[in-house]
Amino acid sequence: MQPLLHRGGQRLVRCAPRALALVRRHGTDGRGTDHPAPPGAACTPSVPMVSRMYQPANLREGGQESELTCRSQRLMQQAGLIHPSSPGCYYYLPATVRAMEKLVRLIDQEMQAIGGQKLDMPSLCSAELWRTSERWDLMGKELFRLQDRHGADYCLGPTHEETVTTLVAHQASLSYRQLPLLLYQVTRKFRDEPKPRFGLLRGREFYMKDMYSFDVSEEAARRTYESVCHAYDMLFSRLGLRCVQVQADTGNIGGTLSHEFQLPADIGEDRLLVCGSCPFSANVETLPSGKTDCPRCHTGTLAESKGIEVGHTFYLGTKYSRIFNATFSNHQNQAVVSEMGCYGLGVTRILAAAVEVMSTEEAIRWPGLLSPYQVCIILPKKGSKVAEESGASAEGLVHALQESLPRLRGEVVLDDRNQMTIGKRLKDANRLGYPYVVVVGQGALEETPRFEVICQQTDETMFLSKDGLVDLLGRVETV
Amino acid sequence: MQPLLHRGGQRLVRCAPRALALVRRHGTDGRGTDHPAPPGAACTPSVPMVSRMYQPANLREGGQESELTCRSQRLMQQAGLIHPSSPGCYYYLPATVRAMEKLVRLIDQEMQAIGGQKLDMPSLCSAELWRTSERWDLMGKELFRLQDRHGADYCLGPTHEETVTTLVAHQASLSYRQLPLLLYQVTRKFRDEPKPRFGLLRGREFYMKDMYSFDVSEEAARRTYESVCHAYDMLFSRLGLRCVQVQADTGNIGGTLSHEFQLPADIGEDRLLVCGSCPFSANVETLPSGKTDCPRCHTGTLAESKGIEVGHTFYLGTKYSRIFNATFSNHQNQAVVSEMGCYGLGVTRILAAAVEVMSTEEAIRWPGLLSPYQVCIILPKKGSKVAEESGASAEGLVHALQESLPRLRGEVVLDDRNQMTIGKRLKDANRLGYPYVVVVGQGALEETPRFEVICQQTDETMFLSKDGLVDLLGRVETV
Repeated sequence: MQPLLHRGGQRLVRCAPRALALVRRHGTDGRGTDHPAPPGAACTPSVPMVSRMYQPANLREGGQESELTCRSQRLMQQAGLIHPSSPGCYYYLPATVRAMEKLVRLIDQEMQAIGGQKLDMPSLCSAELWRTSERWDLMGKELFRLQDRHGADYCLGPTHEETVTTLVAHQASLSYRQLPLLLYQVTRKFRDEPKPRFGLLRGREFYMKDMYSFDVSEEAARRTYESVCHAYDMLFSRLGLRCVQVQADTGNIGGTLSHEFQLPADIGEDRLLVCGSCPFSANVETLPSGKTDCPRCHTGTLAESKGIEVGHTFYLGTKYSRIFNATFSNHQNQAVVSEMGCYGLGVTRILAAAVEVMSTEEAIRWPGLLSPYQVCIILPKKGSKVAEESGASAEGLVHALQESLPRLRGEVVLDDRNQMTIGKRLKDANRLGYPYVVVVGQGALEETPRFEVICQQTDETMFLSKDGLVDLLGRVETV
Repeated sequence: MQPLLHRGGQRLVRCAPRALALVRRHGTDGRGTDHPAPPGAACTPSVPMVSRMYQPANLREGGQESELTCRSQRLMQQAGLIHPSSPGCYYYLPATVRAMEKLVRLIDQEMQAIGGQKLDMPSLCSAELWRTSERWDLMGKELFRLQDRHGADYCLGPTHEETVTTLVAHQASLSYRQLPLLLYQVTRKFRDEPKPRFGLLRGREFYMKDMYSFDVSEEAARRTYESVCHAYDMLFSRLGLRCVQVQADTGNIGGTLSHEFQLPADIGEDRLLVCGSCPFSANVETLPSGKTDCPRCHTGTLAESKGIEVGHTFYLGTKYSRIFNATFSNHQNQAVVSEMGCYGLGVTRILAAAVEVMSTEEAIRWPGLLSPYQVCIILPKKGSKVAEESGASAEGLVHALQESLPRLRGEVVLDDRNQMTIGKRLKDANRLGYPYVVVVGQGALEETPRFEVICQQTDETMFLSKDGLVDLLGRVETV
């Protein structure tokens, strides 16, 4: 059965000693018959090839009518990153899954750095829990509801305060020594939006990171609140996204203190008031209408701007812990109700919001850390002089990158569509936004081969030797 | 805000130069006030401490009545790995999430090695799609159904043949050069089981890996089928799980060729017939009742055994591609209907099945690669002579592991519950199944400190120096 694994044209081959040799052997016809390395032989993982990547441009929309209402939705659909399924529900295509997995790793790092522990809670939430908190009625039509075969009522969790508080309440022996307890998950959430729109920015099914904290006192809970806000700042700063923390309404989540994390953007659905003299900023909803003087410094004037809400934090107090009796035992071994907070990040929304604010009208740009792939190498056009003579230096390049930069394993793709001109493929690469594009052109034929390198984030172009390129790419940050 | 990040007792601290110093400073009282390293300072990630890990033993069951019907369910609930929420729905607690993330990485490796590309499809599936394939009626009560606020019908996807085939059909320009196309996802699935039971073995909400293949011909599709079966064999072999591939019924998925991957186990719900003379094996359902002679070699006798189904493969032919018109253009640029296959792996079920077949009645054992943590270091009891004098060597040990074995970062936990005897903590460590348990005892006071090491997978005990331990643990496989 072994050789079947290696039949031609598979995007990734278990053991391909020299990636480029494979490109030429199997090329674009998908019928090579390369034999596998013997089991246990050292493997150099091969390189993904653009001709085989499932990133279909301009998929037909089937029965769906969807207005391409904003830049990120349009660019992401046209580039084969997402595809609409039903209103507010999307297929996340492979490049998006890669970007999302990177974002989740970043979020994991930041949440675990402040003591967050990751769990995973069911989507099916029993109505009983939601009736206990009175949100079964309060949430109205936003809740997707269903019955199981026995007629029991459930909703699909849009958020999990009831679910997590019940879990913590089930622990009879929770000690003050174990607090603060910070539990989080990154899971699919459901909300029956009246008007889903803007692609991944306002969907009915989406990924969210939700964290819940349990503390011994209000003071401790406020410290936890601050530490989560700080972790959010760290996250957005690592992504290179300017994010404003604004005072917010507590809505149907409840509690007494709340902030939104907003990315300023024209298509943002939230209206913010930002003070010109001090760091105060707030969602318009939280201030008396028409207010223009800053309530904090009293000297500055509030100016309006629009924002995309990418995160939300709530200090909940004992709203849920009292209802579900989530207690801990204190120094005196008495049961005391925990002080809670909850903290959301819109995972798929952050992806789209980043594309929205970083891209041009025609070209996608990602935060460097989230780019699905870091480097695209464009091979010469078939039949050209360069194609005939540059084989060795192109192969040497790929080999050098794989050997010297294990961190970039899987991050380098080869644009092997060598029936297309370099110009056309450069245009594609620009549209898709790889941070680094390397062209194997005339320079590859020099005695010390040189390659054209376009840094698409800064719009710089340079000509580098293999070693120079390894040096440059060795400084690329990955997660 | 900075120092808040580091207030005492957090399980993981952003920058902790010497983990053990932190253990002692913050210890178990959760009120230390360590100051952070300056921004940008080199970080040695600190070590998770057992006293802070959310792995609550014997959670109360709330309103739930659940029989602990099998070994894996009982062990996993008692060890704080899972907790029931509603029938067939579970909280996956942090150690389980770690094991699952490892399993998903393994699956990603094996699927991508044969060319699989990972995407993510919606859970909400429009009834229209399922009516088109006639499965809306066929699936009966197993399908969770719901309506949105506009009265449109949806089901929660238990499998995604309709959804993926529609996607591929939307690509007008799919060329034979791009086939085989292998698309897969690892997502939560929903099935309204009449009798959910056995913990994660038969749930109503569970994680599944489902892959779908599109090929140019039946011959090519059968090659893809074989390559996926081979990848499954690789996966189970890396996990150290003996798995039997048996001929199976195609059920409501359809198609003409199907195999189940079964782990032999007493509590298995499937009955298999295995030939004593040749590799033939089949699910009882696929053979005439009472059959005892082997239909392949005609000489062997079929013996019955029980199995847990952990994977299932189907050659679908054109059943779905014809209905949804999923075509590709062939050499002559004619539209031809694709040949399909689909391939499932029960992700959460594999976790529970592994625990089921590898554990004893009292002690959990994991496949080495999936163990939530690889190493548990037990610190001496508070107030003992060893505790007073072994500080430097214990600290040296942790430091050496962190420096020499970056691959084990996050895989080593400290059992700092030093109010408990070593014996009691050893018992806990045995029950939880860390592959390696290291005891800081008398030997740590010798001139060349030595540590007791228990390899729980093989039941060996040895005494090793710091270097010997680094050498031993350097050979641990991780994913």
